[in-house]
Amino acid sequence: MSAALIPVESLTEFCARCFERLGLAPEDARLTSEALVASNLRGVDSHGIIRLKVYADRLRAGGTRPHGQPSVVSEGPAFALLDGGGGIGQVISAKAMRLAIEKARATIVAVVGVRNSSHFGAAAFYGLMAVEEGMIGLAASNASPTMSPWGGSQKMLGNNPLCVAVPAGRERPVVLDMATGAVALGKILVAMTEGRRIPATWGFDKEWLPTEDPKAVIEGGAIQPLGGYKGYCLSMILDVLTGVLMGGEFATSIRGLYQSLDETQGVSHIFGALRVESFIPLEEFKQRMDAMIALLRGCARAPGAERVYVPGEIEDEIEIERRRDGIPINATLKAELQALARELGVASPFG
Amino acid sequence: MSAALIPVESLTEFCARCFERLGLAPEDARLTSEALVASNLRGVDSHGIIRLKVYADRLRAGGTRPHGQPSVVSEGPAFALLDGGGGIGQVISAKAMRLAIEKARATIVAVVGVRNSSHFGAAAFYGLMAVEEGMIGLAASNASPTMSPWGGSQKMLGNNPLCVAVPAGRERPVVLDMATGAVALGKILVAMTEGRRIPATWGFDKEWLPTEDPKAVIEGGAIQPLGGYKGYCLSMILDVLTGVLMGGEFATSIRGLYQSLDETQGVSHIFGALRVESFIPLEEFKQRMDAMIALLRGCARAPGAERVYVPGEIEDEIEIERRRDGIPINATLKAELQALARELGVASPFG
Repeated sequence: MSAALIPVESLTEFCARCFERLGLAPEDARLTSEALVASNLRGVDSHGIIRLKVYADRLRAGGTRPHGQPSVVSEGPAFALLDGGGGIGQVISAKAMRLAIEKARATIVAVVGVRNSSHFGAAAFYGLMAVEEGMIGLAASNASPTMSPWGGSQKMLGNNPLCVAVPAGRERPVVLDMATGAVALGKILVAMTEGRRIPATWGFDKEWLPTEDPKAVIEGGAIQPLGGYKGYCLSMILDVLTGVLMGGEFATSIRGLYQSLDETQGVSHIFGALRVESFIPLEEFKQRMDAMIALLRGCARAPGAERVYVPGEIEDEIEIERRRDGIPINATLKAELQALARELGVASPFG
Repeated sequence: MSAALIPVESLTEFCARCFERLGLAPEDARLTSEALVASNLRGVDSHGIIRLKVYADRLRAGGTRPHGQPSVVSEGPAFALLDGGGGIGQVISAKAMRLAIEKARATIVAVVGVRNSSHFGAAAFYGLMAVEEGMIGLAASNASPTMSPWGGSQKMLGNNPLCVAVPAGRERPVVLDMATGAVALGKILVAMTEGRRIPATWGFDKEWLPTEDPKAVIEGGAIQPLGGYKGYCLSMILDVLTGVLMGGEFATSIRGLYQSLDETQGVSHIFGALRVESFIPLEEFKQRMDAMIALLRGCARAPGAERVYVPGEIEDEIEIERRRDGIPINATLKAELQALARELGVASPFG
């Protein structure tokens, strides 16, 4: 299927116009659009502009509050807890991360928690905000239940994401941005479309047995946690550090992005910032990062492997390409965005 | 193979006496012994008394300094960086975690890093120190290289451990304590002994191809990272947050516990403590933890699963059993400990 290539700025501008029509303040509309398109830029299309439609549906149904802004529940020099007011996850999260960064300037390390927020997109966006300031950034969220605890057969935990972003010197920042499931649902969908089998460690069928049939996962089954019980434990701990600790919803209480469009989701997040130069000088740290990256990249290849990548490197290469060529939008998504443009009275980015 | 059952206190006392003979101050000898035996108590025998012999060998050869104590490199209200002085990892780590806890009392969140330390045993020991104080504890370490970066075929990263320990109410604390490899080497050794095949996701053979033959992993192969590239990324990030950030050794520069017994290992750690009651009241948090544990435990079972455990629960049950019955010591380990007792002139715990 051939895809239209839309310049980054056109897509961001279109997305921002839509959000403005949906009631967001211009700066919030712009930030949310930049966060979504940043995911597309990094090749993580599952967290990009494909979500605009459901965000719009939630804003129109009342489940996301266009003017929902974070308010301080409690605060100290090195921490804060914010209530997101049921607003847009990206707006709330960017403010929370900025607060963590400001605090860490003085206290070296700071943690900011958020409850009563919504889907926040790709965690890397917030981690990278800290990197811009020469800090190590941490971002994590809970999510509506899509995975079972290990040994269980009911969905109780989210495919909860964790990002740790680290500045480097000559090299690009190292960005771990992973969910606690074995694989993204998108990869299972692609395998189904292409009629391929999947590794038995990716999903369960509806009887909760491991299966190599992608269709069996999609139709009543579930994604397996990363590496079995370890992924389950990681997913639970991320929910503890977000929903449980922040006084928000957790486990089965979180509403999915595509469910109950008129109800807030009740998502919680945690953001951390760590100032590097209090431990060792930032320049020295960056040189050490460059050395580590060079070491790993120079590793002898395993059979069939073309290169050794460091975390975030594949995404960086896609970003260079897409900044130059534009963001690919397939026919289905194009039709959806065109319909939304008409509904909202916004000029389509497809001309 | 039948195992001798040694009462916890006899084993701890024996181990402490050995460390005293090896030059440790009595309180350090006691703490290190308690940390090692705590692993046996929790069923994590790979990190318990089985390590006494190599610790002794390193102390005698000079690669671990019996009086090596942490000294402050830099410090602020919410952070510190310590130099371990090449001492015993448990002594250094317990002091570092205590410092993080003290700091977090005032600042809510605190991070203490350590460089120039040694193998620190099971990370749970330090995480649980924070739980005792009503805090969430974090502990992680780098380790000598045993895994390759994804796509590579040389060992460059450690099977780096991460612990997050969380207080609960009526329930026992939840303890995530995991390494970033797919599986502990011990499980592969057991499969080899029992002539069983292993899942193809556990190890590589010497050509760095996935193998189901445990012998092929042991003889020139390597453990695979947890869940493929995600485990590699986690392992790298833990090395960044320890070795790279703390100005210590990282990746291939770290010496293994069983190599170069006369050289310090150059291990780095990171410890964090987070005061719960600044976010929500501690009692409320504990009730929420109990509720989450009850929810997960009540999950419908997957085929073949007897129970759903929460992280740390299996270890807790073993601890109850072993506190009552004693620590099982197999014949090989018994002979090793008896020989060590003779060498050091310490009374054997086997009578």
